[in-house]
Amino acid sequence: MTSRQSSLRESSWQAGGFVRDETPTAEVERREAVIESLAGTVRDLIDATIRTTVDDDEIHRVRDDLAALVARLRASELPGPAGVRFNSELRAWNWGNAVVGAANGIAPPLRIVHDADGCHADVVLGAAYEGPPGLVHGGVSAMLLDHIMGETASGRRRTAFTGTLTMRYRRGTPLGPLRLEGRVTGEERRKIFVAGSISDAEGVTVEAEGIFIQPLGAPGVAEDPST
Amino acid sequence: MTSRQSSLRESSWQAGGFVRDETPTAEVERREAVIESLAGTVRDLIDATIRTTVDDDEIHRVRDDLAALVARLRASELPGPAGVRFNSELRAWNWGNAVVGAANGIAPPLRIVHDADGCHADVVLGAAYEGPPGLVHGGVSAMLLDHIMGETASGRRRTAFTGTLTMRYRRGTPLGPLRLEGRVTGEERRKIFVAGSISDAEGVTVEAEGIFIQPLGAPGVAEDPST
Repeated sequence: MTSRQSSLRESSWQAGGFVRDETPTAEVERREAVIESLAGTVRDLIDATIRTTVDDDEIHRVRDDLAALVARLRASELPGPAGVRFNSELRAWNWGNAVVGAANGIAPPLRIVHDADGCHADVVLGAAYEGPPGLVHGGVSAMLLDHIMGETASGRRRTAFTGTLTMRYRRGTPLGPLRLEGRVTGEERRKIFVAGSISDAEGVTVEAEGIFIQPLGAPGVAEDPST
Repeated sequence: MTSRQSSLRESSWQAGGFVRDETPTAEVERREAVIESLAGTVRDLIDATIRTTVDDDEIHRVRDDLAALVARLRASELPGPAGVRFNSELRAWNWGNAVVGAANGIAPPLRIVHDADGCHADVVLGAAYEGPPGLVHGGVSAMLLDHIMGETASGRRRTAFTGTLTMRYRRGTPLGPLRLEGRVTGEERRKIFVAGSISDAEGVTVEAEGIFIQPLGAPGVAEDPST
């Protein structure tokens, strides 16, 4: 166990949920790059497991060798999900997040860019995100739209939770390079209205509308629970 | 390369999309169990990668050993996504599917049961499906609902694509054991109306409504493109 590991584990004061963790920002970013490198290879493994045609005996041997790697990672681990951590410099990190988490092999991960009108993200989806043959699973489209639209509603600072979300599937979304977009279309007290879309090179494949809710007591929000 | 491997690869007559593949059903089910066993360990690895706190040097060593396993799986592989395969006994298999695929580490996988009123599935979601701390990512909820509601619309035989899908988030969905449900609420020519929900032990956390569309030319569907 190195001192680096200790600093990441022992300085936190809560095991789950939003955790204050006094790891310095530079150290957070160094560790993030390390875990991101492993997660990238995990994503490669997910793809290879879907596509492999090696024989059964080799599959069994790979599985056993993989189980040994899992045991090495579990030699020291968090007791539960990663949650969201932040330090006193207000650097936050959610490495376990299902859509953007640096450590999460399920996440593509989406790399969201805040622009003047909202957010966008360019992503390449491969075999692991398939639904109908050659197409992105409609549920994956919904998952990614939920995230980028929530991020659009939240902006860089506000907290907002998804209230309702409606997807309109205009045509199949092909696996490959895609662009996601989100923009705020209106606000009404605690409600933030957001439009989102997924596009391929030919245009929009899925459109979405969402209503996101700022929690009571958030800065600038009326304390009227009926809103 | 074994004869089993060859039979799985060389009998197919199309590289992508819906692929007719004359692997006998018994052989499909045997291979499915083999690949499912590997995918189960891949899911374990995804969880361990999110939660590990072992030191950086060990992370790098595990990554390198993992890359070697990926190379072994890629020694023989499909040229692209797995698609959906079926044989002349009409046994279909979609091992790459993002929600139900036996070979897909991203899929929990959802195991859907058809009942008298529609479909249900019991699932336990762990660290890999997290959004807000301790809670299921709202996008993951949408992904799983899209799938079970599509399966509900399709029944055991019909083909149906998602047209629109609306989610209402009533409260946070905790990680852990959950039940998903879908039931048909109405039909109107090519449209099938479906309601869905996610519940924990305390009750419903997310409600959804969807309109699913049967493609033109599907059995029992009018050929009027305006419907």
